[in-house]
Amino acid sequence: MTDAHLAMGEGREFDAIRTMLQVWGARASGIGDDAAILDVPAGQRLVVSTDATVEGVHFRREWLKPEEIGFRAAVAALSDLAAMGALPLGLLLGLGVPQDWSRSLVAIARGVGDAAAAAGCPIVGGNLSRAKELSLTLTVLGTAARPLERGGVRTGDVLYVTGRLGGPRAAVRAWMEGSTPRVEHRARFAAPRPRIAEARWLVDAGCHAAIDISDGLVADAGHLAQASGVRLELDLDALPCVKGVSLDEAVSGGEEYELIVAFPEATGVDVVTFEQRFGVPLTRIGVACDGTGIAIKGASRVDQPRGHDHFS
Amino acid sequence: MTDAHLAMGEGREFDAIRTMLQVWGARASGIGDDAAILDVPAGQRLVVSTDATVEGVHFRREWLKPEEIGFRAAVAALSDLAAMGALPLGLLLGLGVPQDWSRSLVAIARGVGDAAAAAGCPIVGGNLSRAKELSLTLTVLGTAARPLERGGVRTGDVLYVTGRLGGPRAAVRAWMEGSTPRVEHRARFAAPRPRIAEARWLVDAGCHAAIDISDGLVADAGHLAQASGVRLELDLDALPCVKGVSLDEAVSGGEEYELIVAFPEATGVDVVTFEQRFGVPLTRIGVACDGTGIAIKGASRVDQPRGHDHFS
Repeated sequence: MTDAHLAMGEGREFDAIRTMLQVWGARASGIGDDAAILDVPAGQRLVVSTDATVEGVHFRREWLKPEEIGFRAAVAALSDLAAMGALPLGLLLGLGVPQDWSRSLVAIARGVGDAAAAAGCPIVGGNLSRAKELSLTLTVLGTAARPLERGGVRTGDVLYVTGRLGGPRAAVRAWMEGSTPRVEHRARFAAPRPRIAEARWLVDAGCHAAIDISDGLVADAGHLAQASGVRLELDLDALPCVKGVSLDEAVSGGEEYELIVAFPEATGVDVVTFEQRFGVPLTRIGVACDGTGIAIKGASRVDQPRGHDHFS
Repeated sequence: MTDAHLAMGEGREFDAIRTMLQVWGARASGIGDDAAILDVPAGQRLVVSTDATVEGVHFRREWLKPEEIGFRAAVAALSDLAAMGALPLGLLLGLGVPQDWSRSLVAIARGVGDAAAAAGCPIVGGNLSRAKELSLTLTVLGTAARPLERGGVRTGDVLYVTGRLGGPRAAVRAWMEGSTPRVEHRARFAAPRPRIAEARWLVDAGCHAAIDISDGLVADAGHLAQASGVRLELDLDALPCVKGVSLDEAVSGGEEYELIVAFPEATGVDVVTFEQRFGVPLTRIGVACDGTGIAIKGASRVDQPRGHDHFS
């Protein structure tokens, strides 16, 4: 950890950091100076994003195990690298830890380490502070020769989405209703996957714009449309949903960490190979046209999001 | 802000982000995609560090104005770039904001923006979340051809410290005693300066190792000694203190954000030019020898820190 504050009491904080470094082993590197030193390969651009997970805001204590809290927080951040088509370069973990969470610190660290390792992302720094509520602020760095931007969609582009949607929303709904989510819904909430390898395959296949679904399919498609200055016409009849969720949950639920990607119309995308390789579908969901905003086909089954219009 | 969560309610969060972007104006750049895109010049290495400031841990609400909270939090992070001799490349701000702080958000953002602008550091991303307590997690990125490391001190090196010490500790002591700090002590706590320009001058002058004083002069000298595998003999008789503080406060107080730097013995450092240029002294405080740990001369006036020995 870089520049550790003494806010937990010198001994306790340094002990906690040492313990986390032991948990991470070779997954952590370059920690112990005022800052980590990294190299961006020639010809590559640097991408960087920060994302926070706060108890009571992004999850409730009774919903997740400590490992899952760490894993999910890291995925939420790493997903932004996927959305840029970037190769992970490093991750920094800012932890705010209340007294009653201190015994779970190792498990939380293990979850972060597992997510980072699965993404091939070394842990290069962090900060640990006493706090009244548990929070994890993850900063992720990555590299890409040509990062995917939200503003890259062009008229005529074809849009695809990775994976099956709706699981996280269905899990949260179950918890809020006082029931137990289905296993596959809970898994999509507790252990999402950042689509990093998928994004790099998609870049190689010709993808030239992307966003990850953190706010919901329609909301994030709206961000793509706005940034690109195009109208997106979505046909959601074929949208792959996790078993047991409604199309509305799949369309409006956030924190999916799946990707919406855009390809030039002329580029054929081999969705069969994609699914064989990554075990999740790649599904055509619409096209980009001149204009602004989002229009939804098949919307008789979807509650219309505010501010978006309807074309069929 | 990248990948803003909807945790504050979509309208309110986006409104708050828009307002902060207005406050920052040209100080913010490249915000609005899943991640910021930056370029590291050829021949430069990337340095990155993260640092958190939490209400009730690093400051108390009644001590500081909101602008000062933002300014000080940004300086604490930017100081790590100074300690590496790095040129700022970008800053990301993770904010956790309770309801009763929401009206101070603009002022906090202004403080962060002022500190970033003074350091020549663009604000390139961030995250805003509802929270129970106010926290600012700053991630800073910089570049340097040869970053200064803690492990770079060699036997025979001469050590210097920038600035005058003790102000922050004296201010906190006054507040804890229920009195009002002296203006110059409060200023050193509320508005420290990251020694970024100073560090780059020192690198050009031959400095080859550094650390910033966040834990206290002796504690941070101990980190230097340990990382470098040397013994540091400190003569603190000439240590420049802020007016009205004791040598003990100057030696043990943290969050100074001054630098301890090491030069090869043969390198003459022009301390007069340094002080003329930067308005703060550069003071010789010791030498590096074979061995381990810290030894303090003139220590009759200093409470011995635990774990450090005494040589005169």
